[in-house]
Amino acid sequence: MPGTPPTRFVYLGPEGTFAEQALRTVPAAEHGDRTPARSVGEALDAVRAGEADAALVPLENSIGGAVGVTLDELAEGDPLVITREVVLPVEFVLAGRSGVTPGAVRSVAAHPQASTQCRGWLRDHLPDATVVDVLSNGAAAAGAASGEYDAAVCAPIGATRHRLTVFADKIADHPDAVTRFALVSRPGPPPPSTGDDLTSLAVYIAHDRVGALLSVLMELAVRGVNLTRIESRPTGEALGRYVFFLDCTGHVADVRLGEALRGLRRVCADVRFLGSYPRHRWSTAAGDRPTPAPAGLSDADWADAAAWLARLRAGELS
Amino acid sequence: MPGTPPTRFVYLGPEGTFAEQALRTVPAAEHGDRTPARSVGEALDAVRAGEADAALVPLENSIGGAVGVTLDELAEGDPLVITREVVLPVEFVLAGRSGVTPGAVRSVAAHPQASTQCRGWLRDHLPDATVVDVLSNGAAAAGAASGEYDAAVCAPIGATRHRLTVFADKIADHPDAVTRFALVSRPGPPPPSTGDDLTSLAVYIAHDRVGALLSVLMELAVRGVNLTRIESRPTGEALGRYVFFLDCTGHVADVRLGEALRGLRRVCADVRFLGSYPRHRWSTAAGDRPTPAPAGLSDADWADAAAWLARLRAGELS
Amino acid sequence: MPGTPPTRFVYLGPEGTFAEQALRTVPAAEHGDRTPARSVGEALDAVRAGEADAALVPLENSIGGAVGVTLDELAEGDPLVITREVVLPVEFVLAGRSGVTPGAVRSVAAHPQASTQCRGWLRDHLPDATVVDVLSNGAAAAGAASGEYDAAVCAPIGATRHRLTVFADKIADHPDAVTRFALVSRPGPPPPSTGDDLTSLAVYIAHDRVGALLSVLMELAVRGVNLTRIESRPTGEALGRYVFFLDCTGHVADVRLGEALRGLRRVCADVRFLGSYPRHRWSTAAGDRPTPAPAGLSDADWADAAAWLARLRAGELS
Amino acid sequence: MPGTPPTRFVYLGPEGTFAEQALRTVPAAEHGDRTPARSVGEALDAVRAGEADAALVPLENSIGGAVGVTLDELAEGDPLVITREVVLPVEFVLAGRSGVTPGAVRSVAAHPQASTQCRGWLRDHLPDATVVDVLSNGAAAAGAASGEYDAAVCAPIGATRHRLTVFADKIADHPDAVTRFALVSRPGPPPPSTGDDLTSLAVYIAHDRVGALLSVLMELAVRGVNLTRIESRPTGEALGRYVFFLDCTGHVADVRLGEALRGLRRVCADVRFLGSYPRHRWSTAAGDRPTPAPAGLSDADWADAAAWLARLRAGELS
Repeated sequence: MPGTPPTRFVYLGPEGTFAEQALRTVPAAEHGDRTPARSVGEALDAVRAGEADAALVPLENSIGGAVGVTLDELAEGDPLVITREVVLPVEFVLAGRSGVTPGAVRSVAAHPQASTQCRGWLRDHLPDATVVDVLSNGAAAAGAASGEYDAAVCAPIGATRHRLTVFADKIADHPDAVTRFALVSRPGPPPPSTGDDLTSLAVYIAHDRVGALLSVLMELAVRGVNLTRIESRPTGEALGRYVFFLDCTGHVADVRLGEALRGLRRVCADVRFLGSYPRHRWSTAAGDRPTPAPAGLSDADWADAAAWLARLRAGELS
Repeated sequence: MPGTPPTRFVYLGPEGTFAEQALRTVPAAEHGDRTPARSVGEALDAVRAGEADAALVPLENSIGGAVGVTLDELAEGDPLVITREVVLPVEFVLAGRSGVTPGAVRSVAAHPQASTQCRGWLRDHLPDATVVDVLSNGAAAAGAASGEYDAAVCAPIGATRHRLTVFADKIADHPDAVTRFALVSRPGPPPPSTGDDLTSLAVYIAHDRVGALLSVLMELAVRGVNLTRIESRPTGEALGRYVFFLDCTGHVADVRLGEALRGLRRVCADVRFLGSYPRHRWSTAAGDRPTPAPAGLSDADWADAAAWLARLRAGELS
Repeated sequence: MPGTPPTRFVYLGPEGTFAEQALRTVPAAEHGDRTPARSVGEALDAVRAGEADAALVPLENSIGGAVGVTLDELAEGDPLVITREVVLPVEFVLAGRSGVTPGAVRSVAAHPQASTQCRGWLRDHLPDATVVDVLSNGAAAAGAASGEYDAAVCAPIGATRHRLTVFADKIADHPDAVTRFALVSRPGPPPPSTGDDLTSLAVYIAHDRVGALLSVLMELAVRGVNLTRIESRPTGEALGRYVFFLDCTGHVADVRLGEALRGLRRVCADVRFLGSYPRHRWSTAAGDRPTPAPAGLSDADWADAAAWLARLRAGELS
Repeated sequence: MPGTPPTRFVYLGPEGTFAEQALRTVPAAEHGDRTPARSVGEALDAVRAGEADAALVPLENSIGGAVGVTLDELAEGDPLVITREVVLPVEFVLAGRSGVTPGAVRSVAAHPQASTQCRGWLRDHLPDATVVDVLSNGAAAAGAASGEYDAAVCAPIGATRHRLTVFADKIADHPDAVTRFALVSRPGPPPPSTGDDLTSLAVYIAHDRVGALLSVLMELAVRGVNLTRIESRPTGEALGRYVFFLDCTGHVADVRLGEALRGLRRVCADVRFLGSYPRHRWSTAAGDRPTPAPAGLSDADWADAAAWLARLRAGELS
């Protein structure tokens, strides 16, 4: 029921990965059910089927980029909406069973993306160890716990779950790496506008021509709507046919974003609304702060223009 | 009173010029008072002062271009609005007193713009006559009637009023020349939208930069609003400071033009609304016909987009 | 012959008007022949026919706007180019024969545009005098000199030529009013680029649609070329068919303007080049100063980009 | 040495994957050395170090989208250029050891992306089999060959290499799925322009604002350059900082693309050229055919405009 806080949560598993860690930052989830899913698709389908109220899935990583499967799953099937974003620092640790001494590590289990992000550290500190690819950060921790490997590159929560000893923490080469997750629900009234929101869209353009994408950007620009992200994904029909995933500043309830959305609806082959939600304040970097609206694009300017038009239509010009 | 048809009309005099002829095509004027004014400013001030209900003044000529004084007078002072446009073929005649034989014409009175438009004809048919500049078409006819000149280049109505004999008609070099007049009133509810209307605006931009004018055109383009005319006029402050007079397709009551107007209000230093009125069907040339709205810009597209946005805001996505 | 300074000058007459005054600010003209012409067309045709080397004609007035006849004459017939602009303060004087006392002035001759510009002064100082329209500022002075009228509103040079006494000077309501004149010659290599030049163009667009004008402005904007002026003029074919007169910052020899011109050539139905010439520094107002090129649009940026492209094409990427 | 055909090739291994199959479509590779690399980074580094002349790596898949690691590796480190694209149909087969009967298959090894692409087929034909994730298509085939799994979802070449029996071919749900590979070399003169080429770029914009991306698209649009692909990738600095990978129609040696590249160089924070190469004709779909240049954007239009500008600069206007 719209408005009822979700109590049954599903997340991209297995247990002990960053997704579980992210979900635990959501207050309602701390006291609700938390069930791991084997894939993003399974997590989202559980929400679609009503077996869960909300799913926590990864959207993008500051090193690895978009999580394509999440975007694809959101763009297809029954509509779902993002109601919250969670941005989590990606802190990798090197961990192993108690009894293993760090100096004796010869084999390290790691998900390929994790070993990529820790490449410099591994080369400097474990130049002679063999890094073995495994299928998830959770599987790496499990492999170290079972003794199959001497150590694992994994999330702190993975070390905790599998009772591993942390040999070194913050071993990623980019100390500021983060992963952005989305909490996804069945459609319902969006959370209220906070004045610093994002709106996610999947936009299909009729032709893969620069002119068509230019039209999309013009619809946003004339309403002073900024893009914080644009991703293209193939539509699966043919190479060269794309769907664009846009994150825009503003909320569907805002006048200016509403007008921009109507514009996109008209000029695009299709637009799927993926939710309006408060922006996560993940950084104090200047570029991430909401910037004051440029001249003519503040809420007051929109109200003034609407009032002026109403006067024109009533014939009141003086 | 808004809605009351005007009965007291003023027009750019003197009597016997094209403006009077244009006014007589307005049904209500045929039975109302029709008073000539000595200048465009005097005509418009009579309306502003309530001494007349409507003024008929020239806006532009297909040969001579914009009538700057009319634009300036509309852009300054108390607001006035155009409620109707009248497009009149400019048919010049050569006329003189009865008794004068065309072959004996040695002096021809003409307003400079009139003699310019008939230059080819005068050179071919009256190569030896002296063309004398006078201050209006009406003054030319009066001068021929008084015997000061042998003949006049004037409007048909001028020949009639001054009881002149028409020696030759349709003597303009461009047979299709027309003048466009505006019927101007005090502000009130605009005439109803007909589906083929024009809206006139005076737009001030903050800087004389290409970027500022580009912004104005983008506001129109993204709403599918066409320009049928753009004129720049100096603002009187300094060279390089302009006001732009725009004629746009659409009516202030139309959704799409309303949105474009609100956009202009926001991005421009100032916008003065100069009226919405039915388009005069002056020509059957293809380019002058209303063209079907491009994809995404029909009224149905606007209604569909608005309904879609309402559904999004209500959380109804399926 | 290109490169030979002009010695035979023609200007829009009669003698004693602002055009003559403007011509005398051109050094070469001070020692050359200076012949008045009866019209702008006659002046330009004298240059086309080789009877004069250069013509001085009015382009626009800060109060009255563009001088349409000049624009039309430049856009049609054999090509001519502007080689210099002259901007002259428009200082009107009230002058009369010696012996007339200002307090006794009952009739004032004035060109309609002149009386418009001095309307406030005349109303305040000569409320009871009759203002009589005449056909030029020179004709006003001549009428006062002959005694037909008690006084004239005219240019200072007109008072001097007709030996009139100046009763009052600087009587225009806008003290900063200026007229901009062009010195026009037969085509030849343009004067050298000075770093602060203007280029004038007549641009025909295929359709009178906002999209076509938008394309023109985009060609300029992406090359950082500013518009200092845009005028539309009817083409004489039909209402709604226009030629646009543009004044752009830059010189035809400049890389960036050259690229923009090539772009206009491609997207416009026709482009007529009307000359590149040094910008007249008529004002110290901030907006009239050449502004520093925005990021990416300086000459150094263009040179850097060209060198980079040359390296790419040679396969030198390191 | 530029111009010398490559003879030593490296490709994304292991043997028996689509990358090897793609490499064998390159004529020179058929007779040269072909060495598998363990990762895209290793393959590209071998070229950078001079140990190989060219590397064949995947760029994007019509189902899975961009191969992020390839884009990232091309954007960083010593410059490399794409000299050829290869587009390969992605045909998955189900294969197993001889002796295994298809009806007895209980476990299937598959790379997660492969099982995703064959999900429908697997559900319909092997509803009771367990699908086990492995790290590559080659590893799946190897696992079936070793008897660890009953069958594998793999590439045809993988079945051949591991002497597996093909139980079913073309089992992908999207029969038209393709993967696009790039042949990458050290910088050198690009292959000659063919009239139907693509140019790949990595473009960094100063701010993640819609206005900045709009500027990039405008630089392309005014030169009639189409985008066939746009991908954003995080720069690794922070979320919200992206590099855009663009594939544009045209060749670096083409006049129009050269001008667009110079424009991008000026307006972007940085542009990395990733090569110009002939377009692979992978499809007969209408949208993939080179479309005739729009009005004003053909090579002839560019030549005409350049010649016109040269005449203007020489003062030859007639």
